[in-house]
Amino acid sequence: MDSIIANANVLALIASVIGLGFAIYTALWVVRQDTGNDRMRKIAAAIQRGAAAFLTREYRYVAILVAIVTVVLLILSVIPNSGMSPWTAVAFLAGAGASALAGFFGMSIAVRANVRTTAAAQKSLNQGLRVAFASGSVMGTTVVSLALLGISILFMILTNVYADNPTLAASALAGFGFGGTSIAIFARVGGGIFTKAADVGADLVGKTEAGIPEDDPRNPAVIADNVGDNVGDVAGMGSDLFESYASSIIAAIAIAALTTVAGNDAMRVRMEAYPILIGAAGLIISILATFLVRTEENATQATLLGSLRRGVWGASLGVAVAIIIIALILDLGIGIIIATLSGLVAGVLIGYFTEFYTSDNYRPTRGIAESTSGGPAIVVIQGLSVGMQSTVVPVMIVIFATLIAYQASAPNGLYGIAMAAVGMLATLGITLATDAYGPVADNAGGIAEMAELGGAVRERTDALDSLGNTTAATGKGFAIGSAVMTALALISAFITATGSVTSTNTTFQAVVLDPRLITGLMLGAMLPYFFSSQTMLAVGRAAQQIVLEVRRQFKEIPGLMEGTAEPDYERCIAISTESAIREMLAPGIIAVLTPIVLAILTVIGRGNIIGQFVGVETIVGVLLGSLISAFLLAVMMANAGGAWDNAKKYIERGNLGGKKSEAHKAAVVGDTIGDPFKDTSGPSLNILLKLLAIVALVIAPLLAVGVTP
Amino acid sequence: MDSIIANANVLALIASVIGLGFAIYTALWVVRQDTGNDRMRKIAAAIQRGAAAFLTREYRYVAILVAIVTVVLLILSVIPNSGMSPWTAVAFLAGAGASALAGFFGMSIAVRANVRTTAAAQKSLNQGLRVAFASGSVMGTTVVSLALLGISILFMILTNVYADNPTLAASALAGFGFGGTSIAIFARVGGGIFTKAADVGADLVGKTEAGIPEDDPRNPAVIADNVGDNVGDVAGMGSDLFESYASSIIAAIAIAALTTVAGNDAMRVRMEAYPILIGAAGLIISILATFLVRTEENATQATLLGSLRRGVWGASLGVAVAIIIIALILDLGIGIIIATLSGLVAGVLIGYFTEFYTSDNYRPTRGIAESTSGGPAIVVIQGLSVGMQSTVVPVMIVIFATLIAYQASAPNGLYGIAMAAVGMLATLGITLATDAYGPVADNAGGIAEMAELGGAVRERTDALDSLGNTTAATGKGFAIGSAVMTALALISAFITATGSVTSTNTTFQAVVLDPRLITGLMLGAMLPYFFSSQTMLAVGRAAQQIVLEVRRQFKEIPGLMEGTAEPDYERCIAISTESAIREMLAPGIIAVLTPIVLAILTVIGRGNIIGQFVGVETIVGVLLGSLISAFLLAVMMANAGGAWDNAKKYIERGNLGGKKSEAHKAAVVGDTIGDPFKDTSGPSLNILLKLLAIVALVIAPLLAVGVTP
Repeated sequence: MDSIIANANVLALIASVIGLGFAIYTALWVVRQDTGNDRMRKIAAAIQRGAAAFLTREYRYVAILVAIVTVVLLILSVIPNSGMSPWTAVAFLAGAGASALAGFFGMSIAVRANVRTTAAAQKSLNQGLRVAFASGSVMGTTVVSLALLGISILFMILTNVYADNPTLAASALAGFGFGGTSIAIFARVGGGIFTKAADVGADLVGKTEAGIPEDDPRNPAVIADNVGDNVGDVAGMGSDLFESYASSIIAAIAIAALTTVAGNDAMRVRMEAYPILIGAAGLIISILATFLVRTEENATQATLLGSLRRGVWGASLGVAVAIIIIALILDLGIGIIIATLSGLVAGVLIGYFTEFYTSDNYRPTRGIAESTSGGPAIVVIQGLSVGMQSTVVPVMIVIFATLIAYQASAPNGLYGIAMAAVGMLATLGITLATDAYGPVADNAGGIAEMAELGGAVRERTDALDSLGNTTAATGKGFAIGSAVMTALALISAFITATGSVTSTNTTFQAVVLDPRLITGLMLGAMLPYFFSSQTMLAVGRAAQQIVLEVRRQFKEIPGLMEGTAEPDYERCIAISTESAIREMLAPGIIAVLTPIVLAILTVIGRGNIIGQFVGVETIVGVLLGSLISAFLLAVMMANAGGAWDNAKKYIERGNLGGKKSEAHKAAVVGDTIGDPFKDTSGPSLNILLKLLAIVALVIAPLLAVGVTP
Repeated sequence: MDSIIANANVLALIASVIGLGFAIYTALWVVRQDTGNDRMRKIAAAIQRGAAAFLTREYRYVAILVAIVTVVLLILSVIPNSGMSPWTAVAFLAGAGASALAGFFGMSIAVRANVRTTAAAQKSLNQGLRVAFASGSVMGTTVVSLALLGISILFMILTNVYADNPTLAASALAGFGFGGTSIAIFARVGGGIFTKAADVGADLVGKTEAGIPEDDPRNPAVIADNVGDNVGDVAGMGSDLFESYASSIIAAIAIAALTTVAGNDAMRVRMEAYPILIGAAGLIISILATFLVRTEENATQATLLGSLRRGVWGASLGVAVAIIIIALILDLGIGIIIATLSGLVAGVLIGYFTEFYTSDNYRPTRGIAESTSGGPAIVVIQGLSVGMQSTVVPVMIVIFATLIAYQASAPNGLYGIAMAAVGMLATLGITLATDAYGPVADNAGGIAEMAELGGAVRERTDALDSLGNTTAATGKGFAIGSAVMTALALISAFITATGSVTSTNTTFQAVVLDPRLITGLMLGAMLPYFFSSQTMLAVGRAAQQIVLEVRRQFKEIPGLMEGTAEPDYERCIAISTESAIREMLAPGIIAVLTPIVLAILTVIGRGNIIGQFVGVETIVGVLLGSLISAFLLAVMMANAGGAWDNAKKYIERGNLGGKKSEAHKAAVVGDTIGDPFKDTSGPSLNILLKLLAIVALVIAPLLAVGVTP
């Protein structure tokens, strides 16, 4: 019977090898493209060096962290009766390695694609799109392929090692997700701080003090700014979604192993094979769908957007068919099909509504633009209101998807929720491609500016950039929605795994009125606020460092302002890197330690007074509280930030007074606040909520230490 | 045995009559004070007329709402087996009446005290403080006395009518709290919109367009601004705390009636008498403590603050002693004493930490002031960070208070939580006095400005105002903390009351993983965001109306700018009133309808598919989700707003460049955003979270319709 799982793993392995092949082929195509003139090559080389320097530095810190955690996991696994498998440590290492590799490869191609997109845009809009989108596809396909490769190989081994203990196999597999998170927290949180520190710092001295334009090569921080876009939006987004993707599949497998009645192995095996097969099908379909992204040479922007949309919609439709066929083959029943489809549909809808709230084609962002007549304070109030209001629809979508997934797939309701997350993420190969393409186009514009390529090229890269903003907004909504669904699945798995060690309350009211649960909810809801306060301030502090360095270079390097000397770009990149990593440590450590400390208190509190204040109930409360609180804050921040950004751009296109008007000044204030909202604090919350859940799931076996079932 | 309750009610009745006597005596003393010169009297008369006009208008709408709800409650009570008592409608009417009366009386004295404080400040700082604080005492004592009077009389009647059914008696009493909320939503939400619409509108045209100073009598909106301070900060705060106060006592009684084992009437009776007796003792002690607020004639500001603090600390100490003595007499055990004291201590601590985050004596507000060098956007980011960070300590305090109260008073843990809320609010008579005094001092300064009384008087009223800001920040933290504890007690009562109709899950994991509970949590957490987005935008829209009217008057009234003609103050007040009431209707109705619609869906969903999506579990989720989400948002908004305000004032006192510097301009942006944060949206959340909980508790019996226990 286990041959179903073995076959599913082999199919996933084949799919991921095909995916990697496609990624490498596409990457080689990108690298072969024209790199433009010498000046462009020089700038591009500086960005490449900067990105490599950041990654090297980051991975050095990551390596230390990964080594420590691996050792801790190994020690835990040798404690008698700890219930933890040594394979958790192996899976953790594999997850960290795969995520790091995906980030490194995807970003290497993205930074190389920057200049090649600029060069291609010299020819036509369509050429530019092809290069930028190809580099996005490399990122998307690599992330999905490596995640699927890791899971299928590990799961193959684990199902053999623990042939008679599927629960332990699934529990060890959770280490893979945990490994992914440990990269994500550096890439997404650290990267988010890096990108905004460089951006804000460069603008503060460059535009404001020295009076030189944006993206001016004399500004020592300008390369750091370009590196930041790749670091935060490509590698950060990639590692965030790597983890969501891997964890959604792992959560489905864990719930299948934990909830199926003993003896009904046939059902369990098919339920474990299903998410893996959908992953494999989704990967191949996403690759095929990238070929739908093609237009004629004289394409307009509207045609290009239509072309990108065709890719995503085509993939969604294909995956929907695959979801149905695979479920029919595995004979899982109509309920689980509905559950999986509900996630797929929810993902598309969340993306659509995010666009409604953040695109200047619609009322909310127009309203912010119009509110600029009231000055900066009114712009901020209006933007925050739009952000808060924009939480309504995503919350309702997730509520409906959750309820439908659960009820349709009864009695396997929790499995249905996990499968909704898997369904949402099944098209990741192409949705991530449309996200990662945005920053490449943005940087292509920056290079065109620095290399003084003239109006026509800049216009084309601007068109690509603006297209990228639309897809990026959709992508951000999708990233939050999938993080929430994944975390919900992980939390379900954690609660199921620790079910036997919770209080023996036997009524609804005794459970929900357990003060440990309620205070856990409060504590959990508070964490995203604390986390955001720290990441927002971190950007300010890191930007301050950049400002000081840029000022020093302007003063100390003779001939810099006249353009006869080169600024020291590397120093700025090094400073951004250092500050980003330093600033992310405190919030990161607090996030990792919260579930661990609560688990330790739970274990030592058994039978004494500590247990009256802390228990598994507290941990469950913290997980649920942080889930809902981070969901709302993240949506609010991402959408307010996106709407402010586009309101400013709407004015810059000549509306309501255009550039240099009072309205524009007010809009810039909103946009500056929106920067850390949408690029640092908001996305960091995706990591926070998944991190808490995956850490809890990994240490779940520990909570049973010394408990007789 | 019920004689214990009867005696407690009689004692509470006597205490509230004494309280009312003290309030009337103090009110007469205030009215007897000097009203200054003719010009001052004329301005004061305009403010009085405006406030009366607002209240008349507001109460007209309130009357319609109250009439409708009363009829609905009566109809529900005559439906066979609805489980609702007709006394719920009576209690509702009484609660609405008592709250409206307290608001009317307290505000009438506050508006009269404005000009008398100005006149007294012409003599000395101490004289000014005495008048302003006396009017605050009138508000504080009236609120507490009328709440206690209503509860004691109603409870006297209900214990006789339902002598054999204490649960029904307690359930009907909840109508009193609901009545209080229906006033609070108009006074706090509507008042909050009124005050900021007038303030922002007056500033936008006056200071910015016409270039006339703040509080200039030529500005047609300036009287509306003054009326707004009384409407929002005196009547609004009063009705908010009236409801917290009444509901905390009611929740304690309801939990006592619901949780004590049948047959153990002796314990139940003593547990029901306890909160009432603490209320009575707290009222008398608060009155006595107001006599501690006395200083010599040549008092400095520090002495004045010390004097106010002496009053609050003295009352807290006295109430702590009363909590212990009454519990000992009723033989309730040490656990319940600890629970009640934990609430009292938590209230004081939350106030203290609120001051830390919002006073410019400490690092957070100083940090915001210093961040002004980075421009308005950085000020906003810094302020939001401070607001988010400031959630940590209040959340931890509430968590500890809840856990200690629950565990210490086991097996009556829920009762312990309710008693913590009662303990926190026991000193309300004097804490509300120190809050309500602030806006009186603020307006006294405005009148001094308009009447051109010269520097010395203005300096004294400014000193009083600044003192008021410190106490107001403390008061806001206290209002949120007590709202959260009260709502928690109400939710506990609701869950206990509906315990028999929830799902028959028998394990912890089945309960917390019920998707109705989890989606309820999400829905509940979203409501405060939606509510805040609506109240924030409402201020902007209402202010716009004021702007148009002021512009019209400047243009159409000849001689207005030259000071030879009078502006039409009444029109501005009427516009503010209309917009405030119109704008609060939509969010208010949504808040009231949410639990009602969910309850209806729950009842009609029994045994069919609707029941799989909505149930009592959903309502519980919504209540808990909104509790934690509103708690965090409210603290963040209140503290960010307070900190921005004080950062601006810190700069205005000559620091970091002083008035008219770039730093000051940046600080003004923060302050303008902070205005709706701290005076409209933040405080409105207090009402939202209590409103959801009290409506749920009132309709709880309906949820048992057709259910065989």
